[in-house]
Amino acid sequence: MNIGLDMMGGDFAPLEAVKGVKQYLLAHDFDGLSLVLFGDELQLSALLAEQGVPQEKYQVIPTTEIIEMNEHPTRALKEKQNSSISVGFKYLATGKIDAFISAGNTGAMLVGAMFSIKTVEGVLRPTISSVIPKQDGGTGLLVDVGLNADCKPEQLNQFAVMGSVFSQYIYGVEQPKVGLINVGEEEGKGNILAQAAYPLLKENKAIHFIGNVEGRDVFGDKADVMVCEGFTGNVILKLAESVYDIAQNQQIDNPYLNRFNFEIYGGTPVLGVEKPVIIGHGISHGTAFGNMIDVAVRMLNTNVLGKVKEAISGI
Amino acid sequence: MNIGLDMMGGDFAPLEAVKGVKQYLLAHDFDGLSLVLFGDELQLSALLAEQGVPQEKYQVIPTTEIIEMNEHPTRALKEKQNSSISVGFKYLATGKIDAFISAGNTGAMLVGAMFSIKTVEGVLRPTISSVIPKQDGGTGLLVDVGLNADCKPEQLNQFAVMGSVFSQYIYGVEQPKVGLINVGEEEGKGNILAQAAYPLLKENKAIHFIGNVEGRDVFGDKADVMVCEGFTGNVILKLAESVYDIAQNQQIDNPYLNRFNFEIYGGTPVLGVEKPVIIGHGISHGTAFGNMIDVAVRMLNTNVLGKVKEAISGI
Repeated sequence: MNIGLDMMGGDFAPLEAVKGVKQYLLAHDFDGLSLVLFGDELQLSALLAEQGVPQEKYQVIPTTEIIEMNEHPTRALKEKQNSSISVGFKYLATGKIDAFISAGNTGAMLVGAMFSIKTVEGVLRPTISSVIPKQDGGTGLLVDVGLNADCKPEQLNQFAVMGSVFSQYIYGVEQPKVGLINVGEEEGKGNILAQAAYPLLKENKAIHFIGNVEGRDVFGDKADVMVCEGFTGNVILKLAESVYDIAQNQQIDNPYLNRFNFEIYGGTPVLGVEKPVIIGHGISHGTAFGNMIDVAVRMLNTNVLGKVKEAISGI
Repeated sequence: MNIGLDMMGGDFAPLEAVKGVKQYLLAHDFDGLSLVLFGDELQLSALLAEQGVPQEKYQVIPTTEIIEMNEHPTRALKEKQNSSISVGFKYLATGKIDAFISAGNTGAMLVGAMFSIKTVEGVLRPTISSVIPKQDGGTGLLVDVGLNADCKPEQLNQFAVMGSVFSQYIYGVEQPKVGLINVGEEEGKGNILAQAAYPLLKENKAIHFIGNVEGRDVFGDKADVMVCEGFTGNVILKLAESVYDIAQNQQIDNPYLNRFNFEIYGGTPVLGVEKPVIIGHGISHGTAFGNMIDVAVRMLNTNVLGKVKEAISGI
């Protein structure tokens, strides 16, 4: 299993990426894993040696360019062919790595995921999700969180399926309860999209649909997988992230609110593409990088993308 | 000034409504105010006497029916002509009261507001807003929070104007900063609606538009008035309300998080109709009723609806 890591992406790269590699290897030392690290050879060699990362577990693929956080995604990917992200996607597309992780330019990662590797057969549009910390200790999944700002009902229906599979195989939720984000509890509530999506979800045998969930249910245990278009989902996610900042500002140290530190979840995988691509937050530290490697390994070990394909074909 | 109050609406009516009347009168005893209380005469007389509410400040208008929380709004309004809500709107429509307040069936209140009194000239659709507690101590306004789940860009532009006027005259924010709820900072981001609304807001001289605001900015000081369609707004509001519940469950007693107890703000006025109509939460207690009376009085004293009319005609 070869997992590729963009070592130059994120506000604290490459040091924190190196720390993440070390953390992961210390916690999960298994045979058959090789980390493929894309980035500046000199910097990386020095840092990897300094951090004492065992040499037999990684190889460095030297790249000479970096796509910065604010660059235009498609233009940057085209112009910076020797950037860590561009080279990473070439390796992914040609099978030299099995998964690719970066905390760099989100747009470039999305464009790379959608155009350098294939969409899972039958998937209308890939999607991105986020973990949502539940008050009962559980792990919720919100999907889509920003890739698809405008959606058709059929897309929401597919997000529900992909989210369910992911919740089951990656977060270990048996028969995940799927809820439709909406403005009221009853069927028939909502905007045109939610009203049209409801009957599709209701009739979808590949999921366990429990009906509408409202803003007040997001952190509750009503649904494990919460489905909406990427506009609302992105607003919810960023608002949830701000809850952690508020707790910090207010000097509240509470175990549940600490779970709103989204860094602990690593990154968000792109669902619906044929290979694992995981996008981290710009502010990722070592733990986040380590967790992204962990998610990639679990995605490969569980063949979750194969399960997504199966589930989508069964709708 | 005659302010009408549905004494039978809300989970804790009529007792909490009576307490609210008392609280308000104790804090703001001015001449020229008369409260017109709609409800069960026997119950109300007993409670008002028991609470020691001064008789010269109110009159009771006996009603014999109650629209329950889960009744179908239009049907209930039609069938229960002698309910406190129906009679209240008749009084409002005929000028016997100048404002009407209820914590009862929200749908019935919205239908009553939209069909028994006129929409302000030029307003495409009335809207409802919510106070948002800001971390810097300020009072934000989110508009729309659920009346209009699907919107046109022109409606968002009008919500911005109505929200600005309200923020200025009711919450005392000078030159309120208006932000468009969106998924990114830059112009051009967002779903089709947000993309189309942005240029309208940018060119709107009746407001002080500061660009996009993201989920993470909702509780920050970037914008005083935050505009979106009612689907996203309703999800944000209910999620914000749940932050207070989380704090309670986690036994966090923090002055800022305590401001997420939305009861302290009373209710949400319907903006864009010709007379003040204020809708309270079902769970309203005395304080909320008192605050709703206060908002109604301020709306009348500042002639905020006249200002809305002026501003809308100037777009």
